[in-house]
Order: sequence, then C-alpha cells, then structure tokens
Amino acid sequence: MRDFSSSHEALSLNTATVRKQWRLDRIIEECARRDIRAISPWRDQVAAVGIDRIAAQLRATGIKLSGYCRGGFYPAGDAAGLRAALDDNRRAIDEAKLLGAACLVLVVGSLPGALDGRPLYRDLARARAEVRDGIAASLEYARTAGMPLAIEPLHPMQAAERACINTLEQALDICDELDAARTGALGVAVDLYHVWWDPKLEAQIVRAGADRLLAYHVCDWLAPTRDLLNDRGMMGDGVIELKKCRRWMEDAGYSGYSEVEIFSDYWWSKPGEEVLETCIARHKSVV
Amino acid sequence: MRDFSSSHEALSLNTATVRKQWRLDRIIEECARRDIRAISPWRDQVAAVGIDRIAAQLRATGIKLSGYCRGGFYPAGDAAGLRAALDDNRRAIDEAKLLGAACLVLVVGSLPGALDGRPLYRDLARARAEVRDGIAASLEYARTAGMPLAIEPLHPMQAAERACINTLEQALDICDELDAARTGALGVAVDLYHVWWDPKLEAQIVRAGADRLLAYHVCDWLAPTRDLLNDRGMMGDGVIELKKCRRWMEDAGYSGYSEVEIFSDYWWSKPGEEVLETCIARHKSVV
Repeated sequence: MRDFSSSHEALSLNTATVRKQWRLDRIIEECARRDIRAISPWRDQVAAVGIDRIAAQLRATGIKLSGYCRGGFYPAGDAAGLRAALDDNRRAIDEAKLLGAACLVLVVGSLPGALDGRPLYRDLARARAEVRDGIAASLEYARTAGMPLAIEPLHPMQAAERACINTLEQALDICDELDAARTGALGVAVDLYHVWWDPKLEAQIVRAGADRLLAYHVCDWLAPTRDLLNDRGMMGDGVIELKKCRRWMEDAGYSGYSEVEIFSDYWWSKPGEEVLETCIARHKSVV
Repeated sequence: MRDFSSSHEALSLNTATVRKQWRLDRIIEECARRDIRAISPWRDQVAAVGIDRIAAQLRATGIKLSGYCRGGFYPAGDAAGLRAALDDNRRAIDEAKLLGAACLVLVVGSLPGALDGRPLYRDLARARAEVRDGIAASLEYARTAGMPLAIEPLHPMQAAERACINTLEQALDICDELDAARTGALGVAVDLYHVWWDPKLEAQIVRAGADRLLAYHVCDWLAPTRDLLNDRGMMGDGVIELKKCRRWMEDAGYSGYSEVEIFSDYWWSKPGEEVLETCIARHKSVV
C-alpha cells in the first residue's frame, strides 16, 4: 500500500468540499498554493467562472482532474425529458474532455421528481431500467470522445431522489452488461461514504479490478449522523475504516488519486484555508 | 395475493407507532376497540405496565403478538458486556414466550458505544462476527424455549449504531450458516423501510421462503426524508411499492401479519386515535 504519511501527492480535492467558501478559480489557486495536485470540480462551479478560464488556469497550475462531477440523472418520466438528459450528458462529456478529466462521474438519478418531493412514479425497477438505457446511450458517445464513465453507487438513503444504483455489486452488474470486454470506458467511482457499510465491499472491489476502479472518494461517516446529505465527516472523525478500504482498493490494482469529498454544513462554516489544511493533515495521518 | 381492502384482520400494530401517546395497556385497549387483532410491543413498554398484567390483558382481549421487540445488540466490546447481552437476550426470549409472541425480533447491534457517539472500535467485520456468535448463542436457548428468532436487517444508514446486518442477503447467509436445516427456529423480519431500496430484494425474499419469512413490517419512505430515525411515513405517503413487495412476500409463501411500524415525530404528535384510524384506512387502501 502506498505511504501517504509524508506527502499528499495522491490527494485530490473534490471542490464541493469548499464550495460555500470560494469560487472555483480561488479554490484552484488555494490548491496550487498547497501543492494539491488534483481536483474534481462540479459543473456549476466551472460554469460560474467560465470553462475556458478554468481550463487555462488548470494548464497554468498543472493541476489535474481526478474526475468531473457529474453526469447522470437519467430517469425523466417522459421522452422529452430523457432526450434532454442525454443531451446534457453529452455536454458533460464534452466539458470533461475539454478539462482533461480522468473520468466523468455518474450520479445516475432515480424516481423523477422525487428530488422536489413530487415523484412522477414509484416504480424503482423502471427507474433502474431507464438508468441502464441512459448509461448505454451515454457510453456510445463517451467512447468516441475517449472519456471514461464512472458509475457512483450512492448510499441507499439517497435511493429515492439521487441514485437508484446503491451498491457496488449493482454498478458492476451494469458494467458487465454494457462493457463486457472491460475496455476501460465504463467503471465505478468508489465513494466510501456511500459503500462503507456494505458487507460485500471487499469482494466487489476485487471483482471490479483495476480496469473498473476509476475513482476513489474519501470522507468519514459520523456517529451519529444528523443529516442525510450534508453531515459528512472529515477523515478520522467517524467510523469508516479508511486504511483497510484503501488497502482493498490498492490490492485490486487501483493507483489513482484519493479524492476528498465532504458535504458538510459544519466544514462549510469554517474558513476554506482551515478546511484544506485539515484535509491535508488527515490525508497524511488517517487515509 | 390476499385482499386487504375490506378487512384489516391481517394488520398488526407495532406499538412504537403510538408510544408517545399512550402506555401499552391503553394501546391494547384501543386496538381491541378497533378490532386490531395483533400487536408487536417493545420490552420497555411491557415493563412500564408489568408483563403479567399485559399477558392477562392479551388473554382477555384475544390479541396476538406478531412479534416481540427486541433482542439483539450483541457487540459489547468486552467479555462482561457480551455475557450481559446474552443474558438479556435470554430474558427477552422468556418474555416473548410468556406473551406468546410469534417471534423475537433481533436488532443485532453494531459498533459498541456508537449509539452514544463513542464507538469502542471501528472494525465492522469484528462487530459482524460478534453478532453471528451472539445469534448462535441465543439460538441454542431459543430452540429449547421454542421461540423463533427473526433477524431484522436494518437500513445501511443505521449500520454504525444499531445493526451491522444491513441486507436481507446478509441476514439469510447467517440463517443458512446457523440453521441450515430450515427448522423454523431462525429467520428474518422483512421491514420494508429498511430494505425497499435493495435491488436484490425480490430475489432474496424468494430465497428466504416461507420457512424464514417470520415477520413483515410496513410503513413508507418519505421523499425527502428529514431524519435518519424518526421520519418514517404513513403507508401511501412515500415511495415504497407496498403492494408489489407484499406480492413478493406472499408468492414466497408468507401468510402472516402485516405489521405497521412508524417511528415519526409527525405521527407521534397526532392523537393516537387518529393514528390508528389512519393506519387501518391506509392498510385497506394501499398496503
């Protein structure tokens, strides 16, 4: 297993972690200042500054993209909605390509309308079929663009609104179906916050293998957790066995970035500088 | 599939649903008045009135116990704690027997101390091993007492504090290991709140079969859900496909009660009468 204790060269910052403190150009500046060598930005953060400016800033600083957030949200309830979702995913692939991202992360969506509290239907199997078909369609375009798609299984507590792919096993079943040849065009983003609890986690990481382990996200699960979305913990403050899980990833062949992604009202209330310094320190001591 | 529309004879009330409104003796009285023929009480509710008084009241009203809540919470951190947990589970089995319960429901526990925000360790595999050993020990006693044990997989969002058994598959693996002969002494409680999201739910219900489907709990998953513990929905107010899931259960041979269990600050704030009337109405219309 790689030694993270003396350097944070493997650390990537998911820029949602300090989204309430700074605009993306400032985030990149603060990362460069601290020798954080990779980030994973969100589309709205990029758009708020302008993608060409961000691309230029990345070139100037040498900062890489461990991933780009996000594609997905396929189930739409009707044909027009589905077409719009597929168009939007094509744009996300183009943006990821322009920014040189390692992969486009897919938060696949679930019951359409549920995010606004008004689900159009409750048929989870239908949502899952629409997600599968949506990924298949995006994959065709992504292959020609040369942009790998990383399916991110989301925690089951987000199954109604955000993603109806909720285990690594389920994500890998789709990879097997749509990319049986393991071309590298389709894989998974393993975010420990979403999958730490899974009794089959180790076995499914082994099953995924280096070909399909496209991204690795860390934070921590607080006990107790007070909010279903924005109460993620800083690494070391919760119960996730971070080193054990990283060993599973690396034993399976993963050698990419370890991306810190913390949605947290608590950490969003802190100065951005303190958040980044803490991420770096914890990355060395507990990740 | 059974027709629930004209009668609520299959309805059982998990008495936590109105625990904030009434003591258990009053709950039993109110159930009898409405022809609710079964309940599933919690140990603290029974103790608050006295188990002999409750047993007498159950005999007098003819109300049955679809289950008894709860045994479990095995991981303890040390040998003395484990012994205390096993003793406590024996007492729970004795109480369940005295009250004539159909099964003792096991909320198996997880990282010891996590419920108080101070986990003694983070090793989830260790907690799972301790749970397995604890169930094995309880099962020996439960067999002699003739009291079936029903493992309840809890939602992954409760994996740190309350139960490290989080899918039906995982629970059934333990059943296979500890009761390979399918004697009926060990099975599962399928609470839709905890398992509705699981892509393998139907397949695992089939795998369980009538021998191991010892209890069936209903409520609903609200979108959005605002609290990890006490924001369960009344049946029909959320996104769970209640009839589809009941069909899976009945196709697999389940013919027992459908137990309403709603932990909800909202419903706890309503008059108990209104809660029971709503449960009955929804049980007829959407369960």
